[in-house]
Amino acid sequence: MSEFDLINQFFKTAAIKRDDVLLGIGDDCAILSPPAGKQLVVSTDTLISGVHFPELTCAEDIGYKSLAVNLSDLAAMGAEPAWVSLAISLPQANDVWLQRFMRGFNELAGQYQLSLIGGDTTQGPLSISINITGFIDSEKALKRSRAKVGDSIFVTGNIGAAALGLKTAFDELDASNQFTEKNKMDCIARLNRPTPRVKAGLLLSDFSVAAIDISDGLLADLNHICEASGAGAILDVQAIPLSSAVRNYYNDHPDWQSILDGGDDYELCFTCPEHQAEKMLAQMKLYSIDVSCIGKIIKETAIKCLYNNQLVTLTPSGYNHFK
Amino acid sequence: MSEFDLINQFFKTAAIKRDDVLLGIGDDCAILSPPAGKQLVVSTDTLISGVHFPELTCAEDIGYKSLAVNLSDLAAMGAEPAWVSLAISLPQANDVWLQRFMRGFNELAGQYQLSLIGGDTTQGPLSISINITGFIDSEKALKRSRAKVGDSIFVTGNIGAAALGLKTAFDELDASNQFTEKNKMDCIARLNRPTPRVKAGLLLSDFSVAAIDISDGLLADLNHICEASGAGAILDVQAIPLSSAVRNYYNDHPDWQSILDGGDDYELCFTCPEHQAEKMLAQMKLYSIDVSCIGKIIKETAIKCLYNNQLVTLTPSGYNHFK
Repeated sequence: MSEFDLINQFFKTAAIKRDDVLLGIGDDCAILSPPAGKQLVVSTDTLISGVHFPELTCAEDIGYKSLAVNLSDLAAMGAEPAWVSLAISLPQANDVWLQRFMRGFNELAGQYQLSLIGGDTTQGPLSISINITGFIDSEKALKRSRAKVGDSIFVTGNIGAAALGLKTAFDELDASNQFTEKNKMDCIARLNRPTPRVKAGLLLSDFSVAAIDISDGLLADLNHICEASGAGAILDVQAIPLSSAVRNYYNDHPDWQSILDGGDDYELCFTCPEHQAEKMLAQMKLYSIDVSCIGKIIKETAIKCLYNNQLVTLTPSGYNHFK
Repeated sequence: MSEFDLINQFFKTAAIKRDDVLLGIGDDCAILSPPAGKQLVVSTDTLISGVHFPELTCAEDIGYKSLAVNLSDLAAMGAEPAWVSLAISLPQANDVWLQRFMRGFNELAGQYQLSLIGGDTTQGPLSISINITGFIDSEKALKRSRAKVGDSIFVTGNIGAAALGLKTAFDELDASNQFTEKNKMDCIARLNRPTPRVKAGLLLSDFSVAAIDISDGLLADLNHICEASGAGAILDVQAIPLSSAVRNYYNDHPDWQSILDGGDDYELCFTCPEHQAEKMLAQMKLYSIDVSCIGKIIKETAIKCLYNNQLVTLTPSGYNHFK
């Protein structure tokens, strides 16, 4: 099968139709009509086999996750998803693999009316590069630099499960810990099929919020907000929300350093001024989005962690592809 | 050096400033302000070491070529370049390599006021994925489907030199052919530093033109125009423009099958209605862009090749990454 057949067969037919896509896959470029008065929000992310997902991850999950992590970047800006381009490098042409990849990809694309506007397949080690575009109203982006001293710090959902999913995948779980088969499956699902917090991001765009998605670990990502805003943070470690699987694994004695360093959760960490917090929380509740207050933005440019009201030493190491 | 330092150091400082880039590299996404009344044209292309360029290609040339082939896609649509995202996968963090890569990349970005709006570095086998956006006026895109029976077929510049550059790089030149050191250097330069025909594309947008850039070989790429337009073509093989190096190599007996199959030229192949041809050619001459008429669009859905007014058999095989 030629490269062109691959592109035509899997990408062209897979694309969700949108009125603002005037010409889709099949020419030198796509032609798009941006909505009047909106700004565009663009992100690009690459996933490499063995680096961003375990090599044995199934094609559906790779398709799903590749798009989820990119949607998560739009969510962290408060943007409405619109268009996506997909560049896949594959060791060999494999139509079963591609079909399954696109099934996972489209499961998510369909939920957000996201249109695939460009595809490129090349022969090489398995990697997926995605470029995604969304729309925002002027001045509404949830920039990292918007945090102010006194703002409360929030996180959606709960964290730590994806990191345990990775330990499960690599058979690195501590055998002395209690961890049911269901716990393992839950954590693997959180690793492979993170939920991009698109709706939460859209709701937050009505407030003076600085946001980031937790890809590298809560401490490292919160640190990006602090650096961009020229501020620091104080965290109440015990207020950080954990799933029942994570609590079970740590037998009520969480390894906070591991949890706060664990990436791949794709929850949103965001700040909100105190006077807007009540209204923001009411909006989140209306859409059944769990949100926890975990700390405050402070003037001193450091991240401090409190445990039982005592300062403890937890450092943002984060995930580093070149460490 | 961490991933973030890499991104900040090489990408952020490298970006050409544009007023329509409201937020560049450094947040979850870039924020862009599209021009009112224009359409967006988007393309994505991946280059993999050993597939799209010889493994020993120097970093500057890889940076230059990666951007050139993407600019060439915009040229083939008649678009004005604006924004570009860059995802690089590298075996190890290497700041000298990245600096040199960006030097080649920026040499070309600077010429077109193209702003780098997003960057992603990951550890993995060397590959470069680029997503590029340009602007066009409504209805002016040089779509492949616009060719009409009776249109003349043109090509910019000359073809065949990049394919000989590849033979030179892999030491596969036929030793019995005359080929000076200067010829070799010229062909290597055409392989590594193709000129994207952006200006030609912009000029062509005032005419009823179907265009494609020659990346896979003239016959294969012309075939894409024919298929999209539901037509065929007749080519006068002897009218196909060759550089002096290519003519020299073939000693005035060109291997047309090789020349017409050779990719990587990144010239434009386009059609133009006869009544517009004179005005189009005058515009091209004004900007010193060489253009040759090489054939006509015909009703019969095949590509026929004439040599000394005799039909000859030359088939579009083109470049196929999975052959």
